[in-house]
Amino acid sequence: MTTEATTSGELWRDPQAAPADRVRDLITRMTVREKVAQLYGVWVGIESGGEVAPHQHDLAAPIDWDELVQHGLGQLTRVFGTRPIAPEVGARSLARTQREIITRSRFGIPAVVHEECLTGLAAWQATVYPSPLCWGASFEPDLVQRMTELMGRSMRRLGVHQGLAPVLDVTRDLRWGRVEESIGEDPHLVGLIGSAYVSGLESAGIVATLKHFAGHSGSRAGRNLAPSSVGPREFADVLLPPFEMALRAGARSVMNSYTSNDGLPAAADPGLLTERLRDEYGFAGTVVADYFAIPFLHRLHGVAADREDAAIQSLVAGIDVELPTVDCYGEPLLAALDAGTVDEAVVDRALERVLLQKLELGLLDPDYSPDVPGDEIDLDDAESRALARRLAERSIVLLHNDGLLPLTGRRKVAVVGPRANDAGAVMGCYSFPLHVGVHHPEVPIGLDVPTVVDALRADHDVVFSLGCPVLGGTDEEIAAAVEAARESEVCVAVLGDQAGLFGAGTSGEGCDATDLRLPGRQEELLEALLATGTPVVLVLLSGRPYELHRQIDRLAAVVCGFYPGEEGASALADVLSGRTNPSGRLPVTFPGAGTSQPWTYLVAPLGERTDISSVDPTPLFPFGHGLSYAPVTWLTAGVEAREWPTDGTCRLVTVLRNDKEIATTEVVQIYLHDPVAEVARPTQQLIGAVKVDLAPGETRTVTAELHADLTAYTGRAGHRQVDQGDVELRVGRSSTDVHAALRLVLTGPRRRVGYDRVLTPVFDIR
Amino acid sequence: MTTEATTSGELWRDPQAAPADRVRDLITRMTVREKVAQLYGVWVGIESGGEVAPHQHDLAAPIDWDELVQHGLGQLTRVFGTRPIAPEVGARSLARTQREIITRSRFGIPAVVHEECLTGLAAWQATVYPSPLCWGASFEPDLVQRMTELMGRSMRRLGVHQGLAPVLDVTRDLRWGRVEESIGEDPHLVGLIGSAYVSGLESAGIVATLKHFAGHSGSRAGRNLAPSSVGPREFADVLLPPFEMALRAGARSVMNSYTSNDGLPAAADPGLLTERLRDEYGFAGTVVADYFAIPFLHRLHGVAADREDAAIQSLVAGIDVELPTVDCYGEPLLAALDAGTVDEAVVDRALERVLLQKLELGLLDPDYSPDVPGDEIDLDDAESRALARRLAERSIVLLHNDGLLPLTGRRKVAVVGPRANDAGAVMGCYSFPLHVGVHHPEVPIGLDVPTVVDALRADHDVVFSLGCPVLGGTDEEIAAAVEAARESEVCVAVLGDQAGLFGAGTSGEGCDATDLRLPGRQEELLEALLATGTPVVLVLLSGRPYELHRQIDRLAAVVCGFYPGEEGASALADVLSGRTNPSGRLPVTFPGAGTSQPWTYLVAPLGERTDISSVDPTPLFPFGHGLSYAPVTWLTAGVEAREWPTDGTCRLVTVLRNDKEIATTEVVQIYLHDPVAEVARPTQQLIGAVKVDLAPGETRTVTAELHADLTAYTGRAGHRQVDQGDVELRVGRSSTDVHAALRLVLTGPRRRVGYDRVLTPVFDIR
Repeated sequence: MTTEATTSGELWRDPQAAPADRVRDLITRMTVREKVAQLYGVWVGIESGGEVAPHQHDLAAPIDWDELVQHGLGQLTRVFGTRPIAPEVGARSLARTQREIITRSRFGIPAVVHEECLTGLAAWQATVYPSPLCWGASFEPDLVQRMTELMGRSMRRLGVHQGLAPVLDVTRDLRWGRVEESIGEDPHLVGLIGSAYVSGLESAGIVATLKHFAGHSGSRAGRNLAPSSVGPREFADVLLPPFEMALRAGARSVMNSYTSNDGLPAAADPGLLTERLRDEYGFAGTVVADYFAIPFLHRLHGVAADREDAAIQSLVAGIDVELPTVDCYGEPLLAALDAGTVDEAVVDRALERVLLQKLELGLLDPDYSPDVPGDEIDLDDAESRALARRLAERSIVLLHNDGLLPLTGRRKVAVVGPRANDAGAVMGCYSFPLHVGVHHPEVPIGLDVPTVVDALRADHDVVFSLGCPVLGGTDEEIAAAVEAARESEVCVAVLGDQAGLFGAGTSGEGCDATDLRLPGRQEELLEALLATGTPVVLVLLSGRPYELHRQIDRLAAVVCGFYPGEEGASALADVLSGRTNPSGRLPVTFPGAGTSQPWTYLVAPLGERTDISSVDPTPLFPFGHGLSYAPVTWLTAGVEAREWPTDGTCRLVTVLRNDKEIATTEVVQIYLHDPVAEVARPTQQLIGAVKVDLAPGETRTVTAELHADLTAYTGRAGHRQVDQGDVELRVGRSSTDVHAALRLVLTGPRRRVGYDRVLTPVFDIR
Repeated sequence: MTTEATTSGELWRDPQAAPADRVRDLITRMTVREKVAQLYGVWVGIESGGEVAPHQHDLAAPIDWDELVQHGLGQLTRVFGTRPIAPEVGARSLARTQREIITRSRFGIPAVVHEECLTGLAAWQATVYPSPLCWGASFEPDLVQRMTELMGRSMRRLGVHQGLAPVLDVTRDLRWGRVEESIGEDPHLVGLIGSAYVSGLESAGIVATLKHFAGHSGSRAGRNLAPSSVGPREFADVLLPPFEMALRAGARSVMNSYTSNDGLPAAADPGLLTERLRDEYGFAGTVVADYFAIPFLHRLHGVAADREDAAIQSLVAGIDVELPTVDCYGEPLLAALDAGTVDEAVVDRALERVLLQKLELGLLDPDYSPDVPGDEIDLDDAESRALARRLAERSIVLLHNDGLLPLTGRRKVAVVGPRANDAGAVMGCYSFPLHVGVHHPEVPIGLDVPTVVDALRADHDVVFSLGCPVLGGTDEEIAAAVEAARESEVCVAVLGDQAGLFGAGTSGEGCDATDLRLPGRQEELLEALLATGTPVVLVLLSGRPYELHRQIDRLAAVVCGFYPGEEGASALADVLSGRTNPSGRLPVTFPGAGTSQPWTYLVAPLGERTDISSVDPTPLFPFGHGLSYAPVTWLTAGVEAREWPTDGTCRLVTVLRNDKEIATTEVVQIYLHDPVAEVARPTQQLIGAVKVDLAPGETRTVTAELHADLTAYTGRAGHRQVDQGDVELRVGRSSTDVHAALRLVLTGPRRRVGYDRVLTPVFDIR
């Protein structure tokens, strides 16, 4: 029976059976070689790609495609994101490759095609949306969800099934280069926005991949991949919640973190990848390896003796699919199976997840065709551009304003700085132009990306002067910029980062910092501009917050855009002119003189200013901070009852009024303060936030229904619990600008809560 | 019977009974009020003392001595270390106080008298020895042991019983102000030297107090008392081993760490203070609170509802004695006992430990007398000074030398810098002059402390110029120093820290740093001196390493003294002149351009330089580094057998020869490299070190017998184990200057090892 079965190439012997049964039956008929072939990707053309993944050039022998393909293939890696390729050409080539996989392997199972898509699909000519810190700053999950719906629609049209995003790492150290890929430093905000990302992408039929599970952002001193050592409570209460939230939003894949925590690499951690993720969270999708993370167990971590050992440890821990290309899960895993050092059942466990996902994606349908319709594929259509613009407008943060902004009327404006006239300044390191395009300077960017200089020309008489590059530069360049500023009414200094990979930028994956001073000579440039006496508006286009405390008292205004995407410069011009009333709020802290890293606003009292340390870590701009041209009037905030059952809800009602003559927006932020708990808790922690638009003269009532689960934390016994006793709800404009602190008492028994707890408030806005 | 007993004031009803039985019988006869009185100290005269402890002025009501004393008293706090007092006057006053306690309480039990004694007894006119980083740099436990024998002898003469030292915190972040109180960044070295400290002090009959148990050095970003979050494996393998070593050396007291780790303050952690310390380590002495650490549970950590709750939590966790003065263990604890919210048995548990220790100290002997003999007490006798000099000589580290040193012949030398002519420059923040004396500027220092300027005058024609203070200063001062340098043959720049407390210094408890640049304008001064073209010898007198990478290529030499104590300047002059051949080795890393904090040499491969982070953390001077005027020739190094049983020893034999014409010294350092382990291990970790003196022409053979226990680490299962498999012993001059890397294979079964494992090699030197 078995022998007969394995000679048959038919996919389903009983097409009417339940999917899981069909898959399990199929597995019984696959050879070991065919099984493992489903557990890896292949990266075709990697040799000629740029340096887009760490150690990509350490790869073993080149791949023998003809030999490989006959066994089938789990995934195809970065068909569009390896070099610039016209979308329709890529799509046709991909269809051909899929057809080859189907026709040349016994069961004809197509590969899952994955692609990076953090700030838009990593493909040539695809929309570059604002970067994750902007999503966080928008506090507007709906826009993010809409963004990924549009992204997902494009991906489907090309034949892509899986996107390697979102990044749910909670920022812990601003020196880390990947801060720009994160949504922010608060787990609730990261989870809220990350869930919206997932919902949008999944609604378009694309598998969202949550990464990096878990602990990547804890790397010591913010050095990429450096070991972290985070206690289990902090791990559970800060690093994991965004994953829990985004899994509930329907994410069907998870990618491991590269790092080790307390010595154990995530890729070899069954406690994390199986007990936590599968047994506790009930996750049924696939776990994919971060690129080369499996051989890294041997090569970098020193926890595996060789590639075979690395394969066994990863597979047993719970990594189902090796990416980006076959290495440990190829010959080494086959050798282990042959030697009996790994149980074939562990292969089958991963295989079942992979095949079920392929089935769910329709890849195993009888009428599946790899062909994609249409000749012309526009990856940057008007709807996408409009959404990119809207998200940028809603995420720009006005940090500081002495009254100069908005800049009304046509002025003579010196626009100065290395980020003022460079299209790359609005993009993060995972955008196609900076991730891949930089390695192909002969290929045009393929997108219309105005710079700040371009955008401001419509409003003002603009003189541009570079001042200095992001790194380096000459005294003469600075002098020229000073001259330009001196002769202008206003100087707009556009400073910040060059995003890039592995040392090619000042921010981005592998581009870590040793301190938080503006890179290169930019601070010197800023000082020189300030010395002119011309009012200086600082526009930051950066992947992380930088120190501004030495200049803040002399700056007329500071506007933070992070990387606002292809329409970001236009959105910035709208904010500077007042056409857009800024409504972004900081998802990360801007450091003060003593905010030594690592530091985030989630600190217990002794992490704040004390008289026991000479170093005062008070930030310059706290988490949640952001100004408006028309500040909202907070009328009242109150709770309906002082008692809050430990298994029930409380209702917090806030009334806002717009007393100004323009439309405005507030982000109502709700923080929990727990004065006494079993462990030292953060003085304040975001448990809910909602963005509210108010027309001139409008009054709106925001009701938040808050379940007591939102007060849960990991107690001394190591599980998450809701305690009885006093808590305080702090509702206000930022983590430190509190309108009302409402004391409540949690009543009833202490409750242990699990993965099924309530994770977000329910808001009602009238 | 009980009633009758409690009316009796006799101490022992059966003086022949075993001590524990006598103590238990005594406890049955004590009232609750008398019991708790043994569990706290009283700090007489604190109101008029300077700011020597955090929050000392937050104290509740002043103490009613007359009311208190009738119940007895556990401890007396800092009789000598609160203000300057002549030793014999203090001793007589203390004897009077003890007599009062004895005569006015029912059982007549004297108090234990404790004092700070980190770098010498914290008393006026007592020897100020080199600071802990110097002990680490000496790699010479015998000298440290002799130092504490002498310290202990002084303490006994004064009537002091307990010293609140040594600090066994393993440095984790150089920004932390208390780095200067630590022995270094390696747990083996800290344990080795800390054990010698304990042996010496305990041999003099003084109770040594290990602190801070545990985790104090892990405070986030090096901010004093900031929460830490360290995983359990790192906690076990880095922070705890020095305590294990020093307990075996006979320490009879342990003090908690102020900090919380992963949310839980040490003072409320029964897992640490009872399960680990008592049940696992078998510790039978007393656990004393760090000053005010018990009320801090309520006031700073937010884990206790009030002082009563704080008392209960601390007592249950395992803190036996509240210091420095009665607060939570007074009325709040009595209230809890009255209300039944704490079991009296927990009080008895602590009380038994306290009384047994008093019995052991002879305080409960029938012939006990609080009187001290003699009229004149010299706390800085010739023997102590000689030892202070010897330890300083043996700990000074020659970091860099282009050949200018030693400075032979009489030269015209400009001695420049804020540390050149200040007696306080050679002392740490726990020295009496800087800890207490600074609050009494009208009182002379009471010690002969030459400055570097004083010491160099004997050898050279010295011109002194300040250059700048440690902080601040004027352009004119710098110009004057430049002028002095320009007109001299050599410039000796003496730069570094002002040690102090809580913001009063640039290093010391509560004096944390945000970066590792030399404080104030000192780097600017150094640049100005280098620009003169006169060769510059940098002498560092500092509490932590500072960045020197910007100047190192232009400096003629760098000599690091840390705080070398009252004889340190003379010892430095000896090193500069060549009368002493330097033999110190770094116990802490000197950072390079990218050694972002936190960082120590104990990092797994991904914590070192990689191509995955743009930040290269390679230090300027690695752990263990130090030069000599007569470098030793390493002839051979080998092991007797390649196989090393997991329960046995290996013998490593190293042969050294002194080919030079002066006596010289090498520190043979043995590091373990474990290429594959269950968790990512440090690339190299010190497991043994020994200092070897060689006469001119002498050849010496160093044999190290290394038990396999020295390879133990905490594996995935969470316990300490010795694995089979390959390891490498790296023997050499520093953590990176390896003479030989010897591959061995551990054979036999994997072994789980516990507290009773072998902790140090056995060295034989011929």
